[in-house]
Amino acid sequence: MEVQIAVAKVNKFGVSESGDTLEVVERPNGGVSVVLADGQTSGRGAKAVSMMVVRKVIGLLAEGVRDGAAARAASDLLFTEKAGKVSCTLNIASIDLHTNTIVLTRNNPAPMSICRDGQVDCVSTESVPLGNARDTRPIISEMDIQPGAVIVIYTDGLTHAGERRGHPMDVCTVIQAMLDEQDPSPQAIADELLAHAVSLDEGRPADDISVVALKVTPRMGDHVRRMTVRLPIE
Amino acid sequence: MEVQIAVAKVNKFGVSESGDTLEVVERPNGGVSVVLADGQTSGRGAKAVSMMVVRKVIGLLAEGVRDGAAARAASDLLFTEKAGKVSCTLNIASIDLHTNTIVLTRNNPAPMSICRDGQVDCVSTESVPLGNARDTRPIISEMDIQPGAVIVIYTDGLTHAGERRGHPMDVCTVIQAMLDEQDPSPQAIADELLAHAVSLDEGRPADDISVVALKVTPRMGDHVRRMTVRLPIE
Repeated sequence: MEVQIAVAKVNKFGVSESGDTLEVVERPNGGVSVVLADGQTSGRGAKAVSMMVVRKVIGLLAEGVRDGAAARAASDLLFTEKAGKVSCTLNIASIDLHTNTIVLTRNNPAPMSICRDGQVDCVSTESVPLGNARDTRPIISEMDIQPGAVIVIYTDGLTHAGERRGHPMDVCTVIQAMLDEQDPSPQAIADELLAHAVSLDEGRPADDISVVALKVTPRMGDHVRRMTVRLPIE
Repeated sequence: MEVQIAVAKVNKFGVSESGDTLEVVERPNGGVSVVLADGQTSGRGAKAVSMMVVRKVIGLLAEGVRDGAAARAASDLLFTEKAGKVSCTLNIASIDLHTNTIVLTRNNPAPMSICRDGQVDCVSTESVPLGNARDTRPIISEMDIQPGAVIVIYTDGLTHAGERRGHPMDVCTVIQAMLDEQDPSPQAIADELLAHAVSLDEGRPADDISVVALKVTPRMGDHVRRMTVRLPIE
């Protein structure tokens, strides 16, 4: 099998610094984790918060700490640093080759999508962001690594796109339509969701938007691990 | 402009764990850094060493520490932990949007390639790995972020490929040939170098091999940051 992960990420219109932070790290017992955080408000302050949370989480994951414990630790850190006044959402998507499972950790009111056998399941179990309370717990889902699985996680910039004009985006419906028509690559899923959101915001995103799509495919090709990064600069 | 970074990475034949560790992290003042380390020997012990070095470096970079200072700190950590008996190579390639430069930090006897205006410059200034001495210093090169620049860094698995059969690889010549014939994407450069090395090793890599190619292109397209990861699993 092969796991493919794709990310598409854009800043709020007119703001040079995204409040969203995303990192991908290798897990010490095999596999990788994608860590996505969205700090309250936008710009430099939000960026500092989301970087602090992501740095804490990836540091702990690299030491072998389990995802749920890392999320709780990051929440306690943020609560202590900001006296409970600043929140930050967190999603962790891990390919854990030790347990052979995909582990999805979520401290984010925005839902996520899990697709199996072409059916999109919109996971919107209530979930609170980090940093507002002492006993904040993540919602954790675990599933086998199986070909055909598609996971999509995102920050609330995606779900809030178009609200200004009264046309909010129904993310799961858009994903279902894509899966019904074709067998899209994760990059196509992330790109199309982001493009849809930006068009609903009339080309001027009202918030930072980050989309991560993860897909498990039957293995094709070699044993080479690959990564690409594209960074537009002024 | 746009900066594109591509990575291709394969394990030593018959070894499930690579001694090479590579991470890409966002810089707090703008830009990204690619951090590549190769721990002495191979397998689990080498992996622990290269992960420790990379984790130290990315932790410091995320706090705004300069690349050279991060490399020295990682060397001191390794020297202290392993009493000077275990070495680890380190390369850092940073897109620093604060200074608008590409900063290349190298503690690695293996050379690296810097290409400008289609000419490949094989940078082989003497450079020692981390961890063997107290006063280990990196070699640092800095250049403007300019369209057409191509940087290739790699672990010694690439340069040692084929030595077993007496046909070692001349990396810079292979890169020059690619640039003379076409305008290859960074992924094509990384993939072709890796494929060349693996074929010299008759399909059974004698060492872990990691190749990073970085290219600056004139901007084409949107303001979206993108990343993809492909992870083959058993």
